[in-house]
Amino acid sequence: MKKILLLGSTGSIGLSTLDIIRSMPDQFQITGLSVNNNIDRLEEQIKEFKPNSVVVTNEREAEQLRKRIGPLCEVLTGNNGLVEITRQEEYDILLSAIVGFAGLRPTIEAIKRKKRIALANKETLVVAGELIVNLCTEYQAELIPVDSEHSAIFQCLKGEDSNSINKLILTASGGPFLNKSRQELENISIEEALNHPNWKMGNKITIDSATMMNKGLEVIEAFWLFNLPKNKIEVVIHPQSIIHSMVEFIDGSLKAQLSTPDMRLPILYALSYPERYNYNGVSTDFKKIGQLTFFEPNFNKFECLKLAYDAIDEGGTAPCILNAANEIAVEKFLSGKIKFLKIPELIKEALHKIETEKHFNLDSLIKCDFATRELLNNKYS
Amino acid sequence: MKKILLLGSTGSIGLSTLDIIRSMPDQFQITGLSVNNNIDRLEEQIKEFKPNSVVVTNEREAEQLRKRIGPLCEVLTGNNGLVEITRQEEYDILLSAIVGFAGLRPTIEAIKRKKRIALANKETLVVAGELIVNLCTEYQAELIPVDSEHSAIFQCLKGEDSNSINKLILTASGGPFLNKSRQELENISIEEALNHPNWKMGNKITIDSATMMNKGLEVIEAFWLFNLPKNKIEVVIHPQSIIHSMVEFIDGSLKAQLSTPDMRLPILYALSYPERYNYNGVSTDFKKIGQLTFFEPNFNKFECLKLAYDAIDEGGTAPCILNAANEIAVEKFLSGKIKFLKIPELIKEALHKIETEKHFNLDSLIKCDFATRELLNNKYS
Repeated sequence: MKKILLLGSTGSIGLSTLDIIRSMPDQFQITGLSVNNNIDRLEEQIKEFKPNSVVVTNEREAEQLRKRIGPLCEVLTGNNGLVEITRQEEYDILLSAIVGFAGLRPTIEAIKRKKRIALANKETLVVAGELIVNLCTEYQAELIPVDSEHSAIFQCLKGEDSNSINKLILTASGGPFLNKSRQELENISIEEALNHPNWKMGNKITIDSATMMNKGLEVIEAFWLFNLPKNKIEVVIHPQSIIHSMVEFIDGSLKAQLSTPDMRLPILYALSYPERYNYNGVSTDFKKIGQLTFFEPNFNKFECLKLAYDAIDEGGTAPCILNAANEIAVEKFLSGKIKFLKIPELIKEALHKIETEKHFNLDSLIKCDFATRELLNNKYS
Repeated sequence: MKKILLLGSTGSIGLSTLDIIRSMPDQFQITGLSVNNNIDRLEEQIKEFKPNSVVVTNEREAEQLRKRIGPLCEVLTGNNGLVEITRQEEYDILLSAIVGFAGLRPTIEAIKRKKRIALANKETLVVAGELIVNLCTEYQAELIPVDSEHSAIFQCLKGEDSNSINKLILTASGGPFLNKSRQELENISIEEALNHPNWKMGNKITIDSATMMNKGLEVIEAFWLFNLPKNKIEVVIHPQSIIHSMVEFIDGSLKAQLSTPDMRLPILYALSYPERYNYNGVSTDFKKIGQLTFFEPNFNKFECLKLAYDAIDEGGTAPCILNAANEIAVEKFLSGKIKFLKIPELIKEALHKIETEKHFNLDSLIKCDFATRELLNNKYS
């Protein structure tokens, strides 16, 4: 029986995780949950999964929940609550599905406790890859990717020597705008950008998928997870999202991991690894799939992808600036304050105006993150 | 440095094997070779690879070669020569690329010497799967598949628990007649049948590919290699031959092994396993491949595939009869004595007329093989 601390339990990844855990009561047990605001949903989850403690980052909502549930479970609050629960709760695996920078500190706490990290929060590695990878080595904590692309690569590498990798091929659906010209992207509406062809995900990541920044962040994530130079991490457009990614080996052979796109599969793998558990929730029929296609990505149209590759070269706090600027830019787009093509412009502006530091620690990352957000927020306040 | 005994050195697999070995002189060394008749080619190979001994199964040609090369290397002859060379030669790996039933006895000898068997001779497992698998267990000999489909599955299973397999999906190009109706197959010429769209192979296997008996034999081979019931071995048509086969796991996830179709890759893997060696001979560019397609196979049009599945159920010597009848039927087709659609008819006739034995040993297999060939040869003598 594996004990799971699930941070971000009402988001898309959180709900898929609970769906898996619901179907495997003999394998998994929830010991902690967290939400930002959605205490109605959390209350249902508490009643169903009976965690020892939960976090509601919004303090007013936390107070509200305490009144409703009484002594049923402990309710912590704030970003400190997230750190506290990872420090004090009993668990084998932290599944970190918090969106954005807020996932970083709890992840570090769990690493220091030598827990397995099932990482769905890609910002953790994008912003602080070097820090996290070094901490995992120091504390011998396992870092298992939940992103479907990185899970695919992780699965393809099982039993293989890391020295036999020639390159990683991250597949990208290309998002809803694959076949639109750059000009057509000028006046894209929020609804069009939120209409992803294959994956049902949260709003932030769906916009990242439309700009292809999502793939850019994944390239940076792969860079840290698999310890390869960026010219060995390739992106190929594969609109059907059936092949989740591939590894090419030094002998010329490739392996791919495939399935109907459904996040429950990589989540389950991150929890069950190194084993595979019996699960019938997702099926894949190649006779019905019919065809899989592949294209080269257009770096001119999807500038965010190029900015991400550049941030790897720049190194230091550049990916932190890239990530923070992107979070704010997406927020501004979703609230109707900027147009779609303004997203990469804001990121470039931030990368230009905020100075990159080569050497950093958690504090300087927090400062860099804050400075970037402030710069762009002030612009549109 | 691994020492290789290569049986069948002038066939398509043999030449590809020598091409690999030529490019890796620090990794591999040839200690023995064999051919049926082609002593001109063998003479060149002897001069290039300097084996200790060779076999020429045709005795007259063997005598001829002895005169030509003098003391350069020992020349054995006949089917007994094949057994002798596997018994006496020094080698780490037997690569058995002999076509048909003749590959069985040398394979058994190598197993008894606890050598690694790199198996390109699929008839060995089709005819005597139970015998071979039991001998490998008894003598702790490694059996590594060379067929691209089985190599793909073998590679996908690396690091995975065999209990976590849900099913194997063997891909089939569908051969040159994928889009022809059964009626159009009536008057197929030998040239049309030998014109395979993706793979350059020997004549026998190319016709087997056109009838899809090749895939049928591979289903039987997979049945023995991976120890799974036949309903867990599926065939899917994939005309581009890029995905060489797939494994579906119990959690719903799949793995595939892929590359440009080139037998040098599975050959190299069977030789280098468990490592992968650096090799640049074959490259795969997904951006150029464009698309991969998948269809259900038509068991009515490709009756041979159905006959192979049925032979698994029948068990005992049924696959031996199937294989021998197919060899003769293909021979008759290639010599213009029967039409293409007569191939499955002859196999059905043999399966009907020759009695299947449930329990068998090598001697009864040899008898069964002989009886089947005699039956069909007499019919067209």
